[in-house]
Amino acid sequence: MASPEPAGAEPAAITPALAGFLVGSQPADLPEAVRHEATRSLVNFMACAVGGCRDPAIDRLLAVLQIAGPQGGAGLIGRPEALDPAGAAFVNAAAGNVLDFDDAHPRTVIHPAAPVAAALFALLASRPPVSGPAFLHAFTLGVEVACRLGNAISPGHYARGFHITTTCGVLGAAAACAKLLDLDAQRTAAALGIAATGASGLVENLGYMAKCVGVGSAARDGLLAALFAQAGIDAAPRTLEGERGFLRVFCDAPRAAEVLDQLGVRWEAKANTYKPYPCALVLNPVIDALFELRAAPGFRPGRIARVRVRGHPLLLERADRPGVRTGREAKLSIQHTAAAVLLLGSAGIACYTDAAVNDPALVDFRSRVSVEADPHCPSSAARVALEDGEGGWQEVRVEAARGSLERPLSDTELSEKFRSLAAFGAAGLDPEPLLGALWQMKSLHDAGRLLRLSSPSGGVRPVAGAPL
Amino acid sequence: MASPEPAGAEPAAITPALAGFLVGSQPADLPEAVRHEATRSLVNFMACAVGGCRDPAIDRLLAVLQIAGPQGGAGLIGRPEALDPAGAAFVNAAAGNVLDFDDAHPRTVIHPAAPVAAALFALLASRPPVSGPAFLHAFTLGVEVACRLGNAISPGHYARGFHITTTCGVLGAAAACAKLLDLDAQRTAAALGIAATGASGLVENLGYMAKCVGVGSAARDGLLAALFAQAGIDAAPRTLEGERGFLRVFCDAPRAAEVLDQLGVRWEAKANTYKPYPCALVLNPVIDALFELRAAPGFRPGRIARVRVRGHPLLLERADRPGVRTGREAKLSIQHTAAAVLLLGSAGIACYTDAAVNDPALVDFRSRVSVEADPHCPSSAARVALEDGEGGWQEVRVEAARGSLERPLSDTELSEKFRSLAAFGAAGLDPEPLLGALWQMKSLHDAGRLLRLSSPSGGVRPVAGAPL
Repeated sequence: MASPEPAGAEPAAITPALAGFLVGSQPADLPEAVRHEATRSLVNFMACAVGGCRDPAIDRLLAVLQIAGPQGGAGLIGRPEALDPAGAAFVNAAAGNVLDFDDAHPRTVIHPAAPVAAALFALLASRPPVSGPAFLHAFTLGVEVACRLGNAISPGHYARGFHITTTCGVLGAAAACAKLLDLDAQRTAAALGIAATGASGLVENLGYMAKCVGVGSAARDGLLAALFAQAGIDAAPRTLEGERGFLRVFCDAPRAAEVLDQLGVRWEAKANTYKPYPCALVLNPVIDALFELRAAPGFRPGRIARVRVRGHPLLLERADRPGVRTGREAKLSIQHTAAAVLLLGSAGIACYTDAAVNDPALVDFRSRVSVEADPHCPSSAARVALEDGEGGWQEVRVEAARGSLERPLSDTELSEKFRSLAAFGAAGLDPEPLLGALWQMKSLHDAGRLLRLSSPSGGVRPVAGAPL
Repeated sequence: MASPEPAGAEPAAITPALAGFLVGSQPADLPEAVRHEATRSLVNFMACAVGGCRDPAIDRLLAVLQIAGPQGGAGLIGRPEALDPAGAAFVNAAAGNVLDFDDAHPRTVIHPAAPVAAALFALLASRPPVSGPAFLHAFTLGVEVACRLGNAISPGHYARGFHITTTCGVLGAAAACAKLLDLDAQRTAAALGIAATGASGLVENLGYMAKCVGVGSAARDGLLAALFAQAGIDAAPRTLEGERGFLRVFCDAPRAAEVLDQLGVRWEAKANTYKPYPCALVLNPVIDALFELRAAPGFRPGRIARVRVRGHPLLLERADRPGVRTGREAKLSIQHTAAAVLLLGSAGIACYTDAAVNDPALVDFRSRVSVEADPHCPSSAARVALEDGEGGWQEVRVEAARGSLERPLSDTELSEKFRSLAAFGAAGLDPEPLLGALWQMKSLHDAGRLLRLSSPSGGVRPVAGAPL
């Protein structure tokens, strides 16, 4: 990790250097492991988007956008409607994020795929076919830019209250679209500069639908930044590293050197992870421990008198929520999650609906769950103990949860996640052809096929808008 | 001015209080002087927009948006094309700002009209007619919200590098649109919360076309925030004042109490000013002094050996630019401005074109102009001396420039500004009916008439898009 910049030092030429790297990068430059990881991230993004595409928040956002710009042409993942490219980028990114089931770059907590992939898909709508490898390459570069900028401003940026997925996501989306549009170095730098002016997002809105508006906007504004740059709109030459540029404005002590450190050698796509459960990341080791306890011989939920969860103080602070009422809140509740795993044997998407949260058996069980902070426990670990009320107890300790960098989901597990989310959110969509095409990105001649396969009607049709 | 909030204090309930005020406010609550000032601001906005509507930056932005969402319905000021409402809000705000001829709220340096008015005009496109007074009322409230939030975070917010016109403008646009949509208090608060998640903009990009993208986005995102809130999208209840909310995230030491201080009693619209010249505000006292010197008996430009300008150190820092090459740069050049006023007798929009800047006579004259800092000179004042090379000299000192709060432009001067900008930017537009309707807002039955009168074809027609 590089040191903070000395005050008053002349900034390194990050914006032009990054633009030059993007322009020069070729699909063949990606190591095979990076390409595969990028594919996994796309599978995960598509899974989240087909799962989230009928969420009430998405229905409402779409209704407004159909009116504000109803021209069709760009398809929506998992739905039969189409929008203009800017609107489609917005809705697909929001849908990919609405279930909180995204990819996650642990060092920065960025969820990079939703803004980057959705912007790229929107760009495909009305261009000559783009090959699978070219699409994957642009996607990888977009993730790279978002996560590297995030590295340079973490953890202060997020701690201050900026929603890093959107502030860095818009820059990743612009970088990816600039690559797919084949912009030169000057216009690529302009695309980054225009996108930097659109960087926004507040942590305060996490847990509310407004969060999805931010993620949607990041995809749309990144796409538009690249298109504006292509059309000749200029930006300050040092928008990232300048005195009043992105890094210094959005972070009290940025480490600008992180942006270019081992660029093209170390790939952030390989430091990306995929959530196994649609709830807060801090709950993952708890869930793993609960599943292990449930699988033990002689497990009987009726015998459990008390569930004791111990973890890092952050776990207590974020997720000690016995009295939840909505699915959205329950994603941050240890009590609800423990009840769901122990009683239902699941921590899947169906456990975090409003109906599940208000199920009397689960409501009753939540009161048996208590949480304690253990300052010696790392945030990646957790301990869970079950007590039977007669002095008997069992305890399990998990050091690194499923889905972490140490224990990544397998490709098979990712495919399973995809199928379950398709079944949850996109009735009528056959997941297998889409899943097959995703895993075969390397040999795909037209990446637009992914979007066509993601529509339940097998194609895309524009819809008419109504007056405001 | 209120003190900074003590650390850890429970924040006052600003978001719901502001939402409640907006919902309760009636057109008749506006004092006559406030209404008139709001009208002046609209005249100024329309002047800037008709003047800027053919700027190359606007041509480029429009070309992209016609493709990204070509559905017509919402008119563009000064141009025959139409876009979807979101696109029209974007383009009209960018056009109103592109010439740097905006209104200016001196305490915060916010240019509030472009984002607020453009968002409102876009909302008119497909709704039942809105009366002139109702439109003016919503506009005034939007300006109020933008400037009050700006007061609470000035000067630290801008000094840090955030472009305050856009960060606060999106909130003003959302407030104005929420009012015109007649949202209730809860949805008005949600509109503010969604808009806060879109607050963005970097000072680094001033002087580049990317700045207009920021201003356009503020109008569009404010409009969409209100429409999303109307559709039921929710946001954190304390998005403005919360721990990770707008005020604390965007400012190191916000004075939150400023937002509600004398709300509905003291109106920020009355603290708004209009630029008499299309260049940096710091140049205004210099220009006034130059005009006074030029009007003196016996003035002959050929006799001037040297022009000495003295002012606040900020003047030197911002505007000592002898070697400018483009109209955009020249707006920050004392040397070019002095040459234009003394040789051409003008500091109008035509003096800041690339052609004027490269006129050999002006290029030659610029070398005779020098600038000195005087730490005792207030930033609102300037001294200019002409020397004839034979020991003779004349000096003028200006304490407060035309267009400042102390010496506001008259309504007649504003009308003249409007006519000259219409002639500059919107050939074929008859400015008189539009100007007449603007000054008669009070009795206008349909504010949409303003938009129809602003089109050179007298109406609005959609245009077809081309493939990306």
